[in-house]
Amino acid sequence: MSTFDAHDLDLNRIPAVVHDRLSGFLDSKDEDIAAIGTPVSDAVSYLRSFVLNGGKRIRPLYAWAGFVAAGGLEHSSEKIEAVLDAAASLEFIQACALIHDDIIDSSDTRRGAPTVHRAVEAYHREHSLEGSAAHFGESVSILAGDMALVWAEDMLQDSGLSAAALQRSRPAWRGMRTEVIGGQLLDIYLEAHANESVELANSVNRFKTAAYTIERPLHLGASIAGASPELIGALRNYGHDIGIAFQLRDDLLGVFGDPAITGKPAGDDLREGKRTVLLAKALERADRNSPAAAAAIRAGIGKVTQPADIAELAQLIRETGAEAEIEEMIANLTTSGLEHLETVTMPAEVKTLLRDLAIRSTERRM
Amino acid sequence: MSTFDAHDLDLNRIPAVVHDRLSGFLDSKDEDIAAIGTPVSDAVSYLRSFVLNGGKRIRPLYAWAGFVAAGGLEHSSEKIEAVLDAAASLEFIQACALIHDDIIDSSDTRRGAPTVHRAVEAYHREHSLEGSAAHFGESVSILAGDMALVWAEDMLQDSGLSAAALQRSRPAWRGMRTEVIGGQLLDIYLEAHANESVELANSVNRFKTAAYTIERPLHLGASIAGASPELIGALRNYGHDIGIAFQLRDDLLGVFGDPAITGKPAGDDLREGKRTVLLAKALERADRNSPAAAAAIRAGIGKVTQPADIAELAQLIRETGAEAEIEEMIANLTTSGLEHLETVTMPAEVKTLLRDLAIRSTERRM
Repeated sequence: MSTFDAHDLDLNRIPAVVHDRLSGFLDSKDEDIAAIGTPVSDAVSYLRSFVLNGGKRIRPLYAWAGFVAAGGLEHSSEKIEAVLDAAASLEFIQACALIHDDIIDSSDTRRGAPTVHRAVEAYHREHSLEGSAAHFGESVSILAGDMALVWAEDMLQDSGLSAAALQRSRPAWRGMRTEVIGGQLLDIYLEAHANESVELANSVNRFKTAAYTIERPLHLGASIAGASPELIGALRNYGHDIGIAFQLRDDLLGVFGDPAITGKPAGDDLREGKRTVLLAKALERADRNSPAAAAAIRAGIGKVTQPADIAELAQLIRETGAEAEIEEMIANLTTSGLEHLETVTMPAEVKTLLRDLAIRSTERRM
Repeated sequence: MSTFDAHDLDLNRIPAVVHDRLSGFLDSKDEDIAAIGTPVSDAVSYLRSFVLNGGKRIRPLYAWAGFVAAGGLEHSSEKIEAVLDAAASLEFIQACALIHDDIIDSSDTRRGAPTVHRAVEAYHREHSLEGSAAHFGESVSILAGDMALVWAEDMLQDSGLSAAALQRSRPAWRGMRTEVIGGQLLDIYLEAHANESVELANSVNRFKTAAYTIERPLHLGASIAGASPELIGALRNYGHDIGIAFQLRDDLLGVFGDPAITGKPAGDDLREGKRTVLLAKALERADRNSPAAAAAIRAGIGKVTQPADIAELAQLIRETGAEAEIEEMIANLTTSGLEHLETVTMPAEVKTLLRDLAIRSTERRM
């Protein structure tokens, strides 16, 4: 693997570097996996494709930004490759989260390709194996997600970070994993209970998205660099606000988004019955102003399957005025998130970078 | 939590001490979980019951034995509470493995009580929640298992072991988690492929059981105490042989065991279609001596559901002579496993203890 001049590592290069670190890490596991048996190498190849073809690397980007914000490039004695591996390890947590969520949400596609459980199900069917193809697909995917989760730990622990930096990373790492799993548990409980509380829907956004995607990755990177409590506090506050705004944008896209941009069917959240802040606000407003609309929204959510019914339900939600209220919340959270950056000193280019990321995260899906 | 005079900690007290450590750890997570939301505390309560009502604590026992074998009580400067937490953390890996395996095996009961996914399914039904009760039960259980897996890491990393001991624990910890997940992946692939290879069935025993249950826990405890490579090698060899013998005993019980002792229905492995070494050996022998019996075994495995058909299939397997061959393998592995202990020096009482554990593990289910 190549070495880096960290000062050359501008943000646009991070996703490619993360890809290389992940690829190298996966290569390092090949021998151990092959020793268990060829079928396991086959199973792990699904995880490999998923991780290497994946996403915008937003969590590693934020972790790197946290490290740089804390002056890591100037003052830290940690090896840059080790810091990059720690940042890249977040992609394995994300792989577990997405592979398991796709089972939970019964999703067929992800990033324009079949989800892992559907791909394994197809393999089972093509080879006319024993037992239920669907159950086999889910079983392999549960285990592939588990493997991703333990490899996240391995990639961090074996990154080459100093013992002191690993110790400093504990609060962020510990918080993040419990929060994302807890947030996802809350999400499915709210869906099953047909929750209408804005407060609980906000908690899902806070823990499942904001903490996991922005606040804790920044916290992790800053801790590795040995940041002050003040800087960590400011970065976490930024992450809290921008992360919630990011999820509110996602909620709007889940109801009103263009499938060509979101990569998901129009109104997917309505079909699935997701208990978003948008939905809770729409019901609150409809209860005040139009009981008939409130009843129609309650009857449709999680039940609609036809595009025309989905579009009609989206229109009912729009007419409550909840969309405009959410847009205002996004604008306010973006403002307050950026203000937190002004309370502390950090390199000017990092402030610019966090400002850019905030705008990219909240204006449209990254 | 009480402190310990480690020299008073005989093996019989370890399960109770492990229970207390696990209970204390779970208490320490309560506040973080409650902050995410009450429904998450409800979900986590299933994990709590599962972990605290669980099993014989065989993995923590072996980890503790490894620590004592390496002279940890005399020569180590690690805090005893930290070592016990590291040993107890293995129970969270086990919780994840069992909760996820029960989904994969579609098991209804575990330790005489409903499995977690069935218990959550019943909760969904009792409260007439939205969506499929069975799917909700599986979804919550996937996430509860994920939580257990990250809490295993937390309990080890936050145990208070020194940075040096944590570093020494890496090979055992890293190997164990990949091996148990890889072994379980191999197991379900062999089942789906109707595998008849003795060698691959042996690999499942080696990685899913022997490494995970005995070899790596011993390795972990010995590493924490700073054991020599020779001692670690001898303990691992012991663990390899005794662990495989333990699984072969389990395979015999899965076909011929008394439900009153195993806690599972008679012949459960036959109903499930488990591709055990016992089955592979039976088919090998039947192919040589009785093609009609071989055909009947192949037709029945994984297909039988009625008690009479299960009993008939078990009888066919017994008549191949495979049962006697497996008994001989168990006896040979127990002998060779115990011989490994004679190649190194360790406190006499630890040798007695490992000898006792070997006999308890291989003579009947622990």
